[in-house]
Amino acid sequence: RIDGARLWQSLMELARIGATAKGGVCRIALTELDRQGRDLFVRWAREAGCSIRVDAIGNIFARRTGTDEALPPVMTGSHIDTQPTGGKFDGNYGVLAGLEVLRTLNAAGVRTRAPIEVAVWTNEEGSRFVPVMMGSGVFAGAFTLEHALAQRDAQGISVGEALRSIGYAGQAGPAPAVGAYFEAHIEQGPVLENHGRVIGVVTAALGQRWYDVTVQGMEAHAGPTPMELRRDALLAASELVLEVNRIAVERKPHARGTVGTLEVFPNSRNVIPGRVKFSVDLRAPDDAQLLDMDQALRAACARSAAERGLAIDVEQVVYFPPQPFTPRLVQAVRANADDLGYSSMDVVSGAGHDAVYVARVAPAAMIFVPCDDGISHNEIESAEPAHLEAGCNVLLRAMLAAAEV
Amino acid sequence: RIDGARLWQSLMELARIGATAKGGVCRIALTELDRQGRDLFVRWAREAGCSIRVDAIGNIFARRTGTDEALPPVMTGSHIDTQPTGGKFDGNYGVLAGLEVLRTLNAAGVRTRAPIEVAVWTNEEGSRFVPVMMGSGVFAGAFTLEHALAQRDAQGISVGEALRSIGYAGQAGPAPAVGAYFEAHIEQGPVLENHGRVIGVVTAALGQRWYDVTVQGMEAHAGPTPMELRRDALLAASELVLEVNRIAVERKPHARGTVGTLEVFPNSRNVIPGRVKFSVDLRAPDDAQLLDMDQALRAACARSAAERGLAIDVEQVVYFPPQPFTPRLVQAVRANADDLGYSSMDVVSGAGHDAVYVARVAPAAMIFVPCDDGISHNEIESAEPAHLEAGCNVLLRAMLAAAEV
Ligand SMILES: NC(=O)NCCC(=O)O
Ligand SMILES: NC(=O)NCCC(=O)O
Repeated sequence: RIDGARLWQSLMELARIGATAKGGVCRIALTELDRQGRDLFVRWAREAGCSIRVDAIGNIFARRTGTDEALPPVMTGSHIDTQPTGGKFDGNYGVLAGLEVLRTLNAAGVRTRAPIEVAVWTNEEGSRFVPVMMGSGVFAGAFTLEHALAQRDAQGISVGEALRSIGYAGQAGPAPAVGAYFEAHIEQGPVLENHGRVIGVVTAALGQRWYDVTVQGMEAHAGPTPMELRRDALLAASELVLEVNRIAVERKPHARGTVGTLEVFPNSRNVIPGRVKFSVDLRAPDDAQLLDMDQALRAACARSAAERGLAIDVEQVVYFPPQPFTPRLVQAVRANADDLGYSSMDVVSGAGHDAVYVARVAPAAMIFVPCDDGISHNEIESAEPAHLEAGCNVLLRAMLAAAEV
Repeated sequence: RIDGARLWQSLMELARIGATAKGGVCRIALTELDRQGRDLFVRWAREAGCSIRVDAIGNIFARRTGTDEALPPVMTGSHIDTQPTGGKFDGNYGVLAGLEVLRTLNAAGVRTRAPIEVAVWTNEEGSRFVPVMMGSGVFAGAFTLEHALAQRDAQGISVGEALRSIGYAGQAGPAPAVGAYFEAHIEQGPVLENHGRVIGVVTAALGQRWYDVTVQGMEAHAGPTPMELRRDALLAASELVLEVNRIAVERKPHARGTVGTLEVFPNSRNVIPGRVKFSVDLRAPDDAQLLDMDQALRAACARSAAERGLAIDVEQVVYFPPQPFTPRLVQAVRANADDLGYSSMDVVSGAGHDAVYVARVAPAAMIFVPCDDGISHNEIESAEPAHLEAGCNVLLRAMLAAAEV
């Protein structure tokens, strides 16, 4: 069993780097604070007897040797970069749960057959550099190293430059094989809490399609223009916001539909909006349903354009296929939660995670624990020490089984 | 009859001051360009034999003496400040139609009993300094001179400072009596054009109530948060945008309901909107209907808040009562349009105008002429020379009747 107090203390110590006044953490990818966080992890991992490898996109791998070094490693990990107004647990928990597994094995003098690795993936959040989940995306071949290194932040600094400036531009080379990958993470949603369960057995991650929608109507003066002669872009956009919601509500329980951004032009009180731009985020557990939602969205846009005499342009900007996790590993998570006496339930991950990319190239599974009120990407993000301990115990057991003690 | 070519030439000459690449005019209130425009008008008015008076809020009055100087003047006018992307006709037409009346009287050697005045009202547009229709508002006692002078632009410059810097801070004193006020203006809407009429006989201006509405929901991650556990501020706001439209559509033909501005927080693609702010602009021809619309808006907000578990705050920020024009003067416009053989129709002004304030303290009426496609507050704003000439002929006749030749 892992040491819950030691895990909690490490979480609190790492959270001091970039701590915000409201109790959160701002430790943006590839900044000086990210370097300090990485350096702390590397020191702790070395103290735990690990060797350190850094790859060309800055992913850190801390390795505890196995008795059979020819076997591919059993890996865990997550990220330590945060949102600008992020919390102490998103990502950080998965990395430090991995460290706690290493420390527990050391304290118990356990040798595993396969090596154990703890990964710190670069730029999961995507706040400073897009695309999100950059380090695991390169590792999994979702996009090229060159593409990732060339991305620039708002100040024009590239990923490659930022990596060199914090000293984490490592060795290029093919991604090594991974025997099994487990990632512990806070749920970032309210389902476990609402069901009073401690462990979320993550069977899959929702597929995602993101869009930019532009509605082009006709700007006109709000006073002299009769209602029946208007081509109001915001009216059409508002109907579509409701439609995006309906598309997901009709496909319960797992489908999601969200308009997160919306901008109005010219955005003046007494001018009928001539143009509106908004984003659509559709998610579903299988590709057929996601495509069905895509078609429903496009049909709604076409209908609204025809009815209101507007032009509506729909452009898909992001696509993640639904990603099932490896049934054998998922079952290991479920069985170990049961063995340990933790209440659990099967859940799907609504969000993308590094594990979702890793699952493209290796057997993978995730372990969720509740976060208070389901709140994440927020400085008030919080989680119960007992839940974090439980998730880490499940991680330990699942990794030991995969690494053959 | 007035000289349509001379009127057009003056419009084009004034439009050179602040001319934009797209054929519009940007001559913001109390800027150096506004000064140049004012100087040109003053020069033309002096050349037409007028004396010039400037009041403390910078309104300019060009006076042609009457045979009975004890009579209150018969006045016309409008404004020469424009929107940042404004056109050549909004306001400018009313001022230069007044100048054309003076020139026509001079050319014909006509003396009127009452003096004739042409007013250039300060800051009608309100783009740089709020409130809108500032000069006529002070003149009509809608708010105090001190209040108006103290308003500041985005750079912190006050109206008083701006007036002094362009040399148009005139004499304080009570507003003089006005015998009758006529204002010629482009319609800024499509009604005359759609009906194929040349002269709009403006019987009244719609009352207006403007609001700031804030919807407070709960920010959450768009992926892991199930549809049924959301408190999405943009969903509620979208319902209300449609409701504002419905409130006006149900009260045809004159009611208007517009959401011109809408802002989403935090405005991130994969975050359920936690807060939305939007504006509402309601207009109606009578106060009872406007109040009824106010109550419908508040009821819709309360209903949406209760149904979706959100807080919705509604704050009224502007109120203009409906303003009927003076029946005797309205009839003079109608009768003179008929006499001159111009097609006409009664219309209400959907927008506020200087005449709406002046009508609080003097007999007043307005003359509308069509503008192309009903477009205004736009650099492509345009109007037919023949229509501008027709409106000016009606203005000449109506003023002559009021001033007793
Ligand atoms: N975990 C997480 O916030 N991923 C970002 C991409 C997403 O919205 O799913
Ligand atoms: N004419 C004009 O644009 N007035 C501004 C106030 C309004 O929206 O009615």
